[in-house]
Amino acid sequence: MQNRITDLFKVKYPIIQAGMIWCSGWELASAVSKAGGLGIIGAGSMYPEILDEQIAKFKANCSGPFAVNLPLLYPDIEKHLEVIIKHQTPIVFTSAGNPAKLTPYLKQKGIIVVHVISNLKFALKAQEAGVDAVVAEGFEAGGHNGKEETTTLVLIPQIVDSVGVPVIAAGGIGSGRAMLAAFALGAEAVQIGSRFVASVESSAHQNFKDAVVNAKDGATQLSLKQLTPVRLLKNPFYEKVAEAEARGATPEELKDLLGKARAKAGMFLGDLEEGELEIGQISASINEIKPAGEILSEIVQEFNATAKQLSLLNL
Amino acid sequence: MQNRITDLFKVKYPIIQAGMIWCSGWELASAVSKAGGLGIIGAGSMYPEILDEQIAKFKANCSGPFAVNLPLLYPDIEKHLEVIIKHQTPIVFTSAGNPAKLTPYLKQKGIIVVHVISNLKFALKAQEAGVDAVVAEGFEAGGHNGKEETTTLVLIPQIVDSVGVPVIAAGGIGSGRAMLAAFALGAEAVQIGSRFVASVESSAHQNFKDAVVNAKDGATQLSLKQLTPVRLLKNPFYEKVAEAEARGATPEELKDLLGKARAKAGMFLGDLEEGELEIGQISASINEIKPAGEILSEIVQEFNATAKQLSLLNL
Repeated sequence: MQNRITDLFKVKYPIIQAGMIWCSGWELASAVSKAGGLGIIGAGSMYPEILDEQIAKFKANCSGPFAVNLPLLYPDIEKHLEVIIKHQTPIVFTSAGNPAKLTPYLKQKGIIVVHVISNLKFALKAQEAGVDAVVAEGFEAGGHNGKEETTTLVLIPQIVDSVGVPVIAAGGIGSGRAMLAAFALGAEAVQIGSRFVASVESSAHQNFKDAVVNAKDGATQLSLKQLTPVRLLKNPFYEKVAEAEARGATPEELKDLLGKARAKAGMFLGDLEEGELEIGQISASINEIKPAGEILSEIVQEFNATAKQLSLLNL
Repeated sequence: MQNRITDLFKVKYPIIQAGMIWCSGWELASAVSKAGGLGIIGAGSMYPEILDEQIAKFKANCSGPFAVNLPLLYPDIEKHLEVIIKHQTPIVFTSAGNPAKLTPYLKQKGIIVVHVISNLKFALKAQEAGVDAVVAEGFEAGGHNGKEETTTLVLIPQIVDSVGVPVIAAGGIGSGRAMLAAFALGAEAVQIGSRFVASVESSAHQNFKDAVVNAKDGATQLSLKQLTPVRLLKNPFYEKVAEAEARGATPEELKDLLGKARAKAGMFLGDLEEGELEIGQISASINEIKPAGEILSEIVQEFNATAKQLSLLNL
């Protein structure tokens, strides 16, 4: 397959491994890129010097393309930018902020820019800012999420019909069937997060990987909507949040309850009680920890087999 | 196309018009059945004598198949059952309750039974109760909805992999592209609600139809989660509910706020201020009120065209 995304990223498959805090370092990104997809290093949980080290290790291990995901809500983004430019990073995915903030600067440096959106307004804003593509991420996705709560099935065709740049579908996609469904809706690539959390090469703590594999339907919930909405795996920390929200806690109370470094505690250090565990609804269908390359080739095979089946359909 | 659903319902197309309160009487159901789909009369907003009249009118106007949707949460269901059996109703869709309650009785009367579910547990319960098929309905759907908030994209493959009976996908489906996406996920039919609300033959009030056409992304919200979760179009009544929920209102307060007959006021009598307006997220992509038969044939054409495009895909 060749399309605008494979041409843009110079990848074999239009399959992107999401840049996730605490889970996607150089090991995961290089495993995905070696297997023909696009690996992303998630800078959201990295100090500039860590990001520097991670990109260097990626480049030492893999000559393929890669991207860095940079959430725009953090301060001190300048130092991250320096690292990104120093390494001649070919592609940057920006998220959680205004796409107008960095897109012109990054484009001027010759970098391909993709912005993650969850509604039509920001898709149009991103296009206007000059991005090369958008990731349209639905309600079922793990981690930070949109206030509109629009699901992937509803969001993708809406964005595809409204922008000219290619659309990468995200949220609820962990299989070749779901990838093909996204293509039926008009997406030209998929971004997959949760399924790669439960990979051998993910830097998630083993406890967190096991928790993802054990998750059943209804195991996650979009939470902390008064701060930044985030999809969490239900655990004792989540229950405290839910209880506070049910009694009408203020944003300040929720901020205090959240505190600092909970995401690291949960996802990287494996504290399943008090940690913040970000994962998507599709975790209910993830039942095994596998090498990232194997995950990717399973998705490719299922995509092709399902496309063959569908080609016989005619109403 | 011929599959288990077209065989079961004796329809040309595996496209089902959802049985919706205040919107789907005999006119809509017969328009859909005449066009080759399955029309459903929504008994949830009908007294037994009204249901009697509606089925009689359907039969006088259309010799094709039809179904009645019977929510199991209402009292006095016996009289509805009498009407259903008197008319030799071929198919009954049950929803909002325990499938074990009526399935054996209906099956014994020779009626095809389909149950609407939104999680794995109830899909298995429905299968055990002996249903002929299940409707798996995702979070993006209008009206009553599951507590797990699982989206259609995540729910369908999970249910398809877990039950032997055919799965009908619902929630977020209003186009041929989305129907094909549901088939990629393993569904054998789709149930479409919101798109048929905005049809000429729907019994929704013109004000409500116009509100559906005017809805943009983010226009709906899953609400009243402490009672029975229901997806509402945002209007002044919704804002009161949201405000009460944000300050931690009790279920009793919410019940009082909801009161009685708000759904009728909103959807049937056209009170857009104080009425309860139930509609799905896909309303954001519905831009015109059309005859139901035209809607159906557009869906069929887009399904076929998209299937042809996808047949060329190979990774």
